[in-house]
Amino acid sequence: MMNPHPFDPLSPGEIVKAAAIVRNELRGHDLNFRVITLQEPPKHVMVSFLENAPHGHEHVSPVRAARVQVTVHEESKPNMMIELTIDLTSGVVMKRENMLGKHPFIDSAYMQAAEKACRADPRIELEIQKLKLPKGAEVVIEPWAYATDGMSDMSERTTMCWFYMRLLNHPDANFYAYPLDLCAEVSEQLQVTKIYHLPSSENERIRENARPYDHDKIHASGLSEYHPQLRPPPRSTTRPYQVVQPEGPSFNVNGNSLSWEKWTMHVGFNYREGLTLHDIRYDGRSLFYRLALSEMFVPYGDPRMPFPRKGAFDLGNDGAGINANNLQLGCDCLGTIKYFDAWHNTASGEPLKLPNVVCCHEQDDGILWKHTNHRTQNAVVTRSRILVLQSIITVSNYEYIFAFHFGQDASIHYEVRATGILSTCPINTGDKVSYGTVVAPGVLAPYHQHLFCLRIDPAIDGYANSLQVEESIPLPMDDEKGPNPFGVGYTTKSQMITHEGGHDLDFTTNRTFKIINENKMNPITGTPVGFKLLPCYSQMLLAHPQSYHARRSEFGSHAVWVTRYQDDELYPSGRHTMQSLGGDGISSAIARRKGDQAAANVRNEDIVVWHTFGSTHNPRIEDWPVMPSEKMIVGLKPINFFTGNPGLDVAVSTQEQNQSVLVDGTLRCRGDACSRL
Amino acid sequence: MMNPHPFDPLSPGEIVKAAAIVRNELRGHDLNFRVITLQEPPKHVMVSFLENAPHGHEHVSPVRAARVQVTVHEESKPNMMIELTIDLTSGVVMKRENMLGKHPFIDSAYMQAAEKACRADPRIELEIQKLKLPKGAEVVIEPWAYATDGMSDMSERTTMCWFYMRLLNHPDANFYAYPLDLCAEVSEQLQVTKIYHLPSSENERIRENARPYDHDKIHASGLSEYHPQLRPPPRSTTRPYQVVQPEGPSFNVNGNSLSWEKWTMHVGFNYREGLTLHDIRYDGRSLFYRLALSEMFVPYGDPRMPFPRKGAFDLGNDGAGINANNLQLGCDCLGTIKYFDAWHNTASGEPLKLPNVVCCHEQDDGILWKHTNHRTQNAVVTRSRILVLQSIITVSNYEYIFAFHFGQDASIHYEVRATGILSTCPINTGDKVSYGTVVAPGVLAPYHQHLFCLRIDPAIDGYANSLQVEESIPLPMDDEKGPNPFGVGYTTKSQMITHEGGHDLDFTTNRTFKIINENKMNPITGTPVGFKLLPCYSQMLLAHPQSYHARRSEFGSHAVWVTRYQDDELYPSGRHTMQSLGGDGISSAIARRKGDQAAANVRNEDIVVWHTFGSTHNPRIEDWPVMPSEKMIVGLKPINFFTGNPGLDVAVSTQEQNQSVLVDGTLRCRGDACSRL
Repeated sequence: MMNPHPFDPLSPGEIVKAAAIVRNELRGHDLNFRVITLQEPPKHVMVSFLENAPHGHEHVSPVRAARVQVTVHEESKPNMMIELTIDLTSGVVMKRENMLGKHPFIDSAYMQAAEKACRADPRIELEIQKLKLPKGAEVVIEPWAYATDGMSDMSERTTMCWFYMRLLNHPDANFYAYPLDLCAEVSEQLQVTKIYHLPSSENERIRENARPYDHDKIHASGLSEYHPQLRPPPRSTTRPYQVVQPEGPSFNVNGNSLSWEKWTMHVGFNYREGLTLHDIRYDGRSLFYRLALSEMFVPYGDPRMPFPRKGAFDLGNDGAGINANNLQLGCDCLGTIKYFDAWHNTASGEPLKLPNVVCCHEQDDGILWKHTNHRTQNAVVTRSRILVLQSIITVSNYEYIFAFHFGQDASIHYEVRATGILSTCPINTGDKVSYGTVVAPGVLAPYHQHLFCLRIDPAIDGYANSLQVEESIPLPMDDEKGPNPFGVGYTTKSQMITHEGGHDLDFTTNRTFKIINENKMNPITGTPVGFKLLPCYSQMLLAHPQSYHARRSEFGSHAVWVTRYQDDELYPSGRHTMQSLGGDGISSAIARRKGDQAAANVRNEDIVVWHTFGSTHNPRIEDWPVMPSEKMIVGLKPINFFTGNPGLDVAVSTQEQNQSVLVDGTLRCRGDACSRL
Repeated sequence: MMNPHPFDPLSPGEIVKAAAIVRNELRGHDLNFRVITLQEPPKHVMVSFLENAPHGHEHVSPVRAARVQVTVHEESKPNMMIELTIDLTSGVVMKRENMLGKHPFIDSAYMQAAEKACRADPRIELEIQKLKLPKGAEVVIEPWAYATDGMSDMSERTTMCWFYMRLLNHPDANFYAYPLDLCAEVSEQLQVTKIYHLPSSENERIRENARPYDHDKIHASGLSEYHPQLRPPPRSTTRPYQVVQPEGPSFNVNGNSLSWEKWTMHVGFNYREGLTLHDIRYDGRSLFYRLALSEMFVPYGDPRMPFPRKGAFDLGNDGAGINANNLQLGCDCLGTIKYFDAWHNTASGEPLKLPNVVCCHEQDDGILWKHTNHRTQNAVVTRSRILVLQSIITVSNYEYIFAFHFGQDASIHYEVRATGILSTCPINTGDKVSYGTVVAPGVLAPYHQHLFCLRIDPAIDGYANSLQVEESIPLPMDDEKGPNPFGVGYTTKSQMITHEGGHDLDFTTNRTFKIINENKMNPITGTPVGFKLLPCYSQMLLAHPQSYHARRSEFGSHAVWVTRYQDDELYPSGRHTMQSLGGDGISSAIARRKGDQAAANVRNEDIVVWHTFGSTHNPRIEDWPVMPSEKMIVGLKPINFFTGNPGLDVAVSTQEQNQSVLVDGTLRCRGDACSRL
């Protein structure tokens, strides 16, 4: 078998090998393998590999290493996490560390056990009885990680169990439509430690006493069910739409190496970030060393205890990789599709296949460029083809659709769509609160935010890059002798960022963040080659800077961060977000390096740019019972990188190739047939 | 023949009739018919028609009227414009007005005559000789409307003639690559009144003396040609991609009435705005009375005389309708396409067909909504189909692609793409300026803005609407007894706009503009039904408020305007923008009505919302020689208008319908064949 590429995720064989080494290292312990994943090589090693390998120069393949996370159970240290780094060639354990006070990402088996513990607890059974639920109601328990709020000792895990009921006897009935005002906390030892009743109006607090369920909240299934088996027949007006690629797709795939049009890249995947992209080049020129979503935070804005405990780190706590959907042909992508599988591991350290976690396909994206010479009436038009790499994750109620779009004009767009079901809690019939929307009788969908952080590790024509901030500003209006006598002139002012830090967006000045290479000048414009960020303008974190939400997330306070590259600095809210206390994120890292010129200088150095964006999601009823996709788009575009339009050589569009169909005159479509009148 | 719908554009027969009436009215004059177009009925008449017609109630069809613009030539009043309104049924001239001091929109025949006047002028011939152009060079003259700069008497038209040269002997050679430093002004009487040489460096001014053309500016055609006949063979890597709709499209068309999924609307078109949409409803409920682009302004930021005269009102001066491209099957849209033609008129008043000015087709838009129940692993996924109504215009060097996208979730998106060729002027070899980019040797592409104004005439569940501005703001952090002890709470604050005016965007507070109907409450949320604007965050006009650019455009100073509806108030820079002096736009109209409560109140009234957006376009070399589409998107989405997701009844996605194709394993594509290894 061929040697893996250094960016290839671990193979099943490598997972088996890593597990065996760890079992030997930790023999005598009962191991729960949480992660066996690739430890990416140090960048200086990889850069040397990438720059030498294609030229046939002598080079040493980087050490193939695994990062392993296990928990071991000891009486005094329940579920203690141990992290190990393994050299897979030599079998040597390069590093081993007990992660005391840190918690591993969510263990779904453990969450199921917490749910079971609730079900088995007679006190909970009693409380449920007091609710006097409608006949036939089935209680559903939704365990959530505990977002730190300072009310509990965080040295052990606590699980929040939220209660719902299902009224229809169908496994896919939407229980989020029936939130119950019951809540339980479950300890690391799987004991129910607290039970209380939730507030159900603006000024109510948690209560010990139960209130019978208000039957007025029971509503027509049409308002709250989304599953087709529980709905009337769907609309039949949408006729089939198919994409045909008679000569096959335009991409080439070899293992995890992907090439399409003038792009080349390496496709990676891990349990936490999901899809990662490496060594992205256009026409052979280096653009990005690594691109990946680095974190997501979903804080809820309902101030009433215990709702401040709803604050999900969907990457750090849940994992975008292990929660990636098994994508289905004909459903999640359209056209000619290549799927990538990924490998994770079972609790016992066996390889576990995650099938079809990434789909790769092409899309038509309308017109790439057009010009009609009005003198000759000759039109030249090209269509834009894009390559899409898409992954979809489910995190409890929500779905996120992540897609990188590569353009023939050397642009990259990162599109996030939020869909799925709103997280709900109970509200008294007829009540309103100032931090949520009533989406069905008795159902409150609280305000919340979705904050994403895209980590951009640039390599713009090389690895020493700078971040330049440019604004467009009016020239002062002059008298008739000055340079701007008509008051129409404007110019750009630029600033080079010299130190690590966070920056804000300002569309009113057309503030533009450019990643440039000051060592490479464009031969025509006479300016450094670069790529610019097309940001997604978003409100930053609303939670108070002193709140745990803010202290734990950190990346949510600014839209654009720049740091000096550090191996393993991949996560802007820290590596271990589960019940974290704060101080582990991007601003803390920057603060630690402040004053250390060698580490904090970001001009003409190996830098990383992080873009925070998202949505302040104050639900509308149209998001219920399942929300139409909400799109957020970030772009990266060349700016004076090439010597002209990189898509100029795309062939003109012709009917011969595109085979469009003309609809003539009046058209009436009913059922299966359209008639032209 | 059936009576036309009151929103139907004039038929050829109606154009003939209107022209005949005007010829009779103005007999004795030599008429140049500029426009014969529909005069839309007064809104109160139309509302009565629209609300009664579908119910079979008795109603009177509104008077069918034409608005006609002609110029007549008199010695003392050259090309005087006369506007007439004609009752097409009775033949009565309802209104006739001499538009002294106003100028009609650009007359392409007149522009060609101006060009000819330059060519015929021996002084210009002499200046061209002095330039000592390379052998074989052909001079191209590009006449532009004169953007008012206060330097000339505006009572007559002036035309600015810019000079370029074509080096390759091909009609589609890109002459913008060879801007000459020569400029001429041509009078209303087609006399060359001024000739001068353009500045070619930052501090240079216009000159009388010629400088020989610098042959160092001559560059390889590969850098500046876009026409395929002048380029090397295109890339051959992009394989065919076809859209097949085996049962035909999902839309119905009857004349200009269009229905698709739950949408109904009426498609209009006129010489100025191009595509207009009327009486837009979803599932029978009224949403918008009228949607159309209302103006575009493209001011250039080069302060050096005469460049402040570059400021194009692409609707008011040029016309998005008459400059609309004849769209070609297989090129401008993909799939199953319905084209709409439009009718304009010749100078002599005959009908002139504008074929294929609008294409109507469907597109797949990825995932509409998805949820996977993690307990059952059952995924429900629907794909989003959108209906696209697209029009493309060419305005000299630039192209704009305008498209309305209708969604199954009751959303509307308005997408603008800018493409085409940058407007250029000369620059000395090796020089730079602070308000432009050198895109090829000797070619300066000056900074400029593209500002669009989308006019939104809402009818959200009725015609009395309000504009509400909502912001998301943190609750103050309290001690443990207060309502927000954890500091995570946030809420929304709303303000109802009571008076006409302009407003700004602020993403930092998630400022949201909602058009609501205060008379219609959502039965579940208990809040007024509404639609929200998803703005395109853009820098506003950079020109100084005292500049002619600012005084003439007006709409460019704020992102969101709200006015009380007025018949014929369709244009935010005024009706006659050609060499206008200012004071005719949206802020002047608002100022005139200020204090008049009856006219200026916009709460629970018939209102119009105008959204200004666009781009500050500081060219990058990748925009040369033809720029990759730059997308700008504005959205309108229901907010608590329905009682749930309006796309909930879209059928789930299946492979049976979508017929996607699986790519298995390694794939190598070369030439016509892909092989799986």
